[in-house]
This record gives sequence, C-alpha cells and structure tokens, in this order.
Amino acid sequence: MILTVTLNTALDITYRVPALVPHAAHRVEQVTERPGGKGLNVARVLAALGHRCVVTGFAGGRTGAHLRELLAPLAPVDALVPVCGDTRRTIAVVDTATGDTTQLNEPGPQITAAEWEAFLAAYEPLLREADAVALCGSLPPGVPVGAYADLVRRARAADVPVLLDTSGEPLRRGLAARPDLIKPNADELARLTGSREPLRAARDARRRGAHSVVASLGPEGLLAITPDGTWQAAPPAPVRGNPTGAGDSAVAALLSSLVEGLPWPDRLRRAVALSTATVLAPVAGEYDGEAYEELLTGVRVTALGD
Amino acid sequence: MILTVTLNTALDITYRVPALVPHAAHRVEQVTERPGGKGLNVARVLAALGHRCVVTGFAGGRTGAHLRELLAPLAPVDALVPVCGDTRRTIAVVDTATGDTTQLNEPGPQITAAEWEAFLAAYEPLLREADAVALCGSLPPGVPVGAYADLVRRARAADVPVLLDTSGEPLRRGLAARPDLIKPNADELARLTGSREPLRAARDARRRGAHSVVASLGPEGLLAITPDGTWQAAPPAPVRGNPTGAGDSAVAALLSSLVEGLPWPDRLRRAVALSTATVLAPVAGEYDGEAYEELLTGVRVTALGD
Repeated sequence: MILTVTLNTALDITYRVPALVPHAAHRVEQVTERPGGKGLNVARVLAALGHRCVVTGFAGGRTGAHLRELLAPLAPVDALVPVCGDTRRTIAVVDTATGDTTQLNEPGPQITAAEWEAFLAAYEPLLREADAVALCGSLPPGVPVGAYADLVRRARAADVPVLLDTSGEPLRRGLAARPDLIKPNADELARLTGSREPLRAARDARRRGAHSVVASLGPEGLLAITPDGTWQAAPPAPVRGNPTGAGDSAVAALLSSLVEGLPWPDRLRRAVALSTATVLAPVAGEYDGEAYEELLTGVRVTALGD
Repeated sequence: MILTVTLNTALDITYRVPALVPHAAHRVEQVTERPGGKGLNVARVLAALGHRCVVTGFAGGRTGAHLRELLAPLAPVDALVPVCGDTRRTIAVVDTATGDTTQLNEPGPQITAAEWEAFLAAYEPLLREADAVALCGSLPPGVPVGAYADLVRRARAADVPVLLDTSGEPLRRGLAARPDLIKPNADELARLTGSREPLRAARDARRRGAHSVVASLGPEGLLAITPDGTWQAAPPAPVRGNPTGAGDSAVAALLSSLVEGLPWPDRLRRAVALSTATVLAPVAGEYDGEAYEELLTGVRVTALGD
C-alpha cells in the first residue's frame, strides 16, 4: 500500500459567490465541503488510479470528526491519529463569473508533545506495510519544524521510498534527511534556493539532499533531475481550467509509477497527463479520466543534457 | 420575560487577516466563534441590561449543535427548535490593519413544512409568557415569505407588543400585519418605500402598517415616528469604531424600555446611548458599559413637528 501523511488535515469548504468584493457583504450561493489537506487529496487520486492507500496525520475536535465522517465512504483507509484541538477549516471563495478563487486557511490545531509522540508510534508500523510514503503539506502549530526530517529518516531506515511535498523551513530541514523525491513548484524552489532559473534551482535542491527533484512549472509541465537523467515533460498544448489539485495529482502519479517500477520518462508522462487532466476537470481536485488517457500519449518528454 | 425569534440563527465566525486581497491565499491569524443571528445578539444585550430573555428559532445539524453548546453558558434561555438541516455559518473577514470587514453569509438550512409547524407550536406557549417579542433577521430557505406576518398576528392576538427587524419582502409582508414597531436602517427604509428622505420614508412605512417606526440613521442617530409624537435622537458627538451589532443593541434598548414602560424620549435616549456604546466597544457586538452610562445623559432628543 501507499501511505500519505497529512499532519495539517483540513475540512475544505468552498463558497460560490458572484464576485468577492472586499469590505462588502456577500450571500453565499453554494456551500460544498470535502476532506482535505494535500495528503488526503493525493490518496484520493491514488485510489482512483487503483492503488491501495492509507492516510495518516492528525484529526481532532468537531471539524476533525466531520472530516472523518466525510472520509469514511471514500477509498483511502483512515489511520488518522486523534488530537484534542480542532482540525482546521479552509475556505475557498470562488467567483462564479470568472472562477477566480480567494483562499482563507485557518492555522490548524495546537499539537502537544504527547500527540506528536503518539503520531510517531502510529507511523512506524504503517511504514512497515508501505511500498512508498508521501509527506504532504504544512505543519500545524506545536509540531517541531524538523518533523519532516525525522519522518524522512524513519522511512529511509525502513527502506521505504519517501516523497516530500512541503515548503519553507519544513522543506529546508526535511531535505537534509535526503528524501528520495521532492516536488516543489517554481515559487517554492525559488524560496528554497534563491534562484528563479528552474534548472539551476532544481540542481541546487538536489545538492541540498533530494535524490530526485521534480519541479512543477505550471502550464509548462515538469522538470525532473534524477540519478538516471534530466528531463522536461510538457502537455501537448496549453489548457485552461482550475489548477487547484494539479500538484497533488502530480504527486499521486509520481508515487504510483514509482511503486509500479516505471522508468522516469513514463513517470513524468503520467504526472503531466494526470495534472493536466485535473486542470480540465470541472470539480477542483478531481481529474477528467478520458482526457487523462488521451494526454498520456500526447505528453512530450525531452531528455536534457547534464 | 422578553422573547426574541431568530429563524435563521448562525454560527458567527470571525477571521483576522492582515488584509483581504481577492484571488490571493490568506493565512488566518485568529479564529473566533460565537452564537449569532440578530435575535441572539439582541438577547445577549437584553441579558446584560438585566432582562430575562428566551431565544427561539431554528438550530440544526452539526453547526446548530455547536451554536447551542456556545449558547448554553450564556444568560439567554435556549428554546430553539431542532431541524434536520445544518444551521448556517457566517464568516466575517476582518482586515487587521484597518478593521474593515468582508462578510460571507451562508444561506441557511432548508426548513420543511413540518419544521415550520413545529416552530409555530413552540411559539404560542412562549408568547403567553412574554412581555414583548422581537422578530429578527432573514428567513431560511423553505420558510414562507409571509412568516413574519403570521408571527406578528399571533403576537397581537396574544396582546404581546411585537418589534419586527427584518428587510426586503419579509418586512413588506410583515408590515401588513401591523407590528407595534419596526427598526429599519436608511437603506432598508429606502428599499421598502422608494424614498431616501428619512422622514418621508418613515411616515410611508407607518402608513403601510407599523404603529411606530424607529429609523436608524447611522452616526446621526435615530428618527422615531410614533402615535405619541415624532423625535430625532442623536449622540452628543460622532464616534469612530465598529458598527457591527449597533442595530441589535438599539433593538435591545427599545424592547427593554418598552417593557419598563418608559416614555418615548427615554427609549430613544437608551437606544442611541447603547448603540453608540456598541460602536465604541473593542469586540464587535458588545458594548462599553461606562460609555453607555455617560452617553445616556448626553444624547440629544429633539421633538419634531408632525
């Protein structure tokens, strides 16, 4: 099975309003709720790809209970660790006319030292059953900033390939523990390395500890620097749509193809096809299955010189 | 006791962010939650003024349960009627720098015909114990648009003075049932009557059925047209602050002074002092007790000719 870790899970709430105007009152036309946090999104896509998937991390309070209720009928297995604090909400305010989204993210519950220990105790046996693990998203308050470095080290000790998808200081610290793969976007890479030149920045990120770096360059696709070679992968044509969840789909594609033992060009083909099919789907975070199958044959993968 | 009716109660959530920027992502710095809806706010102020108060209306689902938990330790007595649907949330996004607020209001739960009947069955015995009743705020989906007209008629049949504080079509319909008092602001009055001239519009609203009209004119205070005379009441000086809840405080002042049998000039003095003290309070919806006492002697009440 594939394990995804979401320490800062979220109840993702979407509000549709005609247009968000600061300092005005808005009547929300439509409210939707779903269990969220990057690792949960990744797990849903992995399940859709036919992989058995277990989600862990923290869930607590009234919002946590609601999230688990919404998660129960879905395919990923719930191995979330209960905490006292309230799981956070995120609010995506979508302008109906344009589809533009304004995001409001609560910080998340305060995690105690005992709760962090309880998570580590739950993580170890899950790792032993995992074919790969993804560590996803922000850290809630109270979790040590070096948490991901610790989780990467434990995965490597258990001989489980580990993908780290986070940003800022948790990414910087996590890199030092030498994860198998990171998947930063251009902004995260620039913040990490100080360079906005993707190839240079990705090389720098590898030097900082990642065995492989797959940088997502938005509509231009992916850039991968790996021990086996360097590639750029791009969709056959630019697409318009909602990029929410495209990064999580890329992570799901990279994890599933890693577990299936595919060569890098095929992994990148799947990642670009799946994230592009996610942009094309009408519902944020889902993907268009037909478009995915078509895109798989259309993605251009180009080997770059070292 | 004083009864307040809030058919569309709400869990009022406040998010503090540095500044709301459309189509950007925001990390919420502070989250606060309180039981809300106009009638609940009015009841809290009435309790602070020393009046026994009962709140009714609808509460349901996960949000309704949370609202009732937050309400339990407060003074107003909970006589809310349970419904299947989820009580709505409202989100007030406050820019920390300026205090400006962006409001997102969910529509509220769908109320069934049986639930509306259950409310009417609960309302009658509550009315029999009430010295006055306030009907407050918007109607949730499913409640007949003439609901307030029905509730006004029942209050009048039970000989209980009734204040109606709503807007739009529910106000227009409710007026026809001849409530004792309405408290529109300038915008609501203009929408009702087509006139932006407050004296003319308030007289028109009286002709449409209200025995008395107290129009709130923001920083300029109140204009009252009553069977006993016409008055304008204004604070001693303009104040700066957060006007959220000022209207609910005015309603609480008008209800309490009506029940105490005060003459109109004293009712208006209390309403202006209390709403001004609400603008001055650091927390939205609360009032500054010292400022209230001081303002009571400073409010200018002027009799106008008919």
